[in-house]
Amino acid sequence: MRLARILYGGGPRLARAVAGGYVLDEERVEIAQADAFLLAPSEPTKILAVGWNFPEHIEEMVARLPTRTFPEKLDEPIIFLKPPSSLVPHLGPIVYPSDATRVEHEGELSVVIGARMRRVTPEQAQAGVLGWCCGNDVTERDMQARDRQWWRAKGYDTFAPLGPGLETDTPDPDARILTRVNGETRQQGRVRDMIRDPWQIIAFVSQAVTLLPGDVIMLGTPPGVGPLVPGDTVEVDIEGVGLLSNAVVAE
Amino acid sequence: MRLARILYGGGPRLARAVAGGYVLDEERVEIAQADAFLLAPSEPTKILAVGWNFPEHIEEMVARLPTRTFPEKLDEPIIFLKPPSSLVPHLGPIVYPSDATRVEHEGELSVVIGARMRRVTPEQAQAGVLGWCCGNDVTERDMQARDRQWWRAKGYDTFAPLGPGLETDTPDPDARILTRVNGETRQQGRVRDMIRDPWQIIAFVSQAVTLLPGDVIMLGTPPGVGPLVPGDTVEVDIEGVGLLSNAVVAE
Repeated sequence: MRLARILYGGGPRLARAVAGGYVLDEERVEIAQADAFLLAPSEPTKILAVGWNFPEHIEEMVARLPTRTFPEKLDEPIIFLKPPSSLVPHLGPIVYPSDATRVEHEGELSVVIGARMRRVTPEQAQAGVLGWCCGNDVTERDMQARDRQWWRAKGYDTFAPLGPGLETDTPDPDARILTRVNGETRQQGRVRDMIRDPWQIIAFVSQAVTLLPGDVIMLGTPPGVGPLVPGDTVEVDIEGVGLLSNAVVAE
Repeated sequence: MRLARILYGGGPRLARAVAGGYVLDEERVEIAQADAFLLAPSEPTKILAVGWNFPEHIEEMVARLPTRTFPEKLDEPIIFLKPPSSLVPHLGPIVYPSDATRVEHEGELSVVIGARMRRVTPEQAQAGVLGWCCGNDVTERDMQARDRQWWRAKGYDTFAPLGPGLETDTPDPDARILTRVNGETRQQGRVRDMIRDPWQIIAFVSQAVTLLPGDVIMLGTPPGVGPLVPGDTVEVDIEGVGLLSNAVVAE
């Protein structure tokens, strides 16, 4: 089932996607696609993201390091936080900060949590998912390299596009994760290429922090990350999940 | 003025501290101190914290490094995020995680934001503060050293004690920031010892992320950080701000 959070009657409402639009079941109201204003698919108390979860993305990032050698063992996933103020919905702008020098796209499958979870197993995690969406873990590379912590490299306002809606069916392992810039494919991978699958990631994160309904985890980016500049349009397109499109604008 | 968020009628309410208790002005209800259940002083959408903001704390941390030499220039403050799920109020427990090996206290003056702020100056930041409280930036040192990002070293559930209430008066530059463990003073410093003052920190953070009402910034810890173990009681005591007390319990 495809859901979406839309603006209706002055507030956010969870609607069901149908051919050509959305339905608010309680009110028996139907809204045409063109009239629906999509919000980010959840209001998370926290957004977590995974670094280096696709082998070929690790290779491309290691190649950028001054040493060009693998810096450490990856016994455990690399996890980091993005602030909720970085969220932006489908069709919302990615604002290129006036003090940024190198902003890049990272298209990612993302999961929205549906239940309170703490120290769950991967098996238990499956019952705690509300749905799936596309995410873009937009990153300022120069600040990522310079800062000890990635709070701003990954956390600038509008650096977490998420949407378009919420797909409740689990994505197929063969589903393609594509990122296009101005119509040209830049990143591609498949769900099954992940080093750690979504259930392992949820379980790992829940060993330290309690996950709450609405919380979001961005599950790592396939190879092909590259620059964005004002004027670009970036799309994250995941088979069976949806298409997230955002324009890049100067601050 | 001293405020506190207390549990009343099943929900959180902002009360005014008076001698011996709290007053809910709207209801003209007075609650004795012993009957008031204090909540964390705000419900932040994000918690930010500052690393290495006191010169003598930098010295003690550099002394712990394998190289014992200063790792880099600190042109800009070190900032990181703690998830809201790490919040715990005055008298709430700090849960020592079952997989932790070295948990430490970091008593800190903390500021609660009162207005939406983006790219403000230090001067503008002064109008955007709701109040001040004590914070404890509890840290798992072994994970902090091992992980690229500090999401769990600083982000475990209950690793952000905050309280007891909210003081609306700006702390005096001479105010002492003390941290005691089981009654023994472990950390001390004064507000004026900060390398960057609260207004500079707020202004800096706001260059990247929009600060929202209720958001919290923990402003850095004075020298004297050290271990906590289950059974300890840790107090952060800031002149003119209040006393935050939390017991450490095993998970």
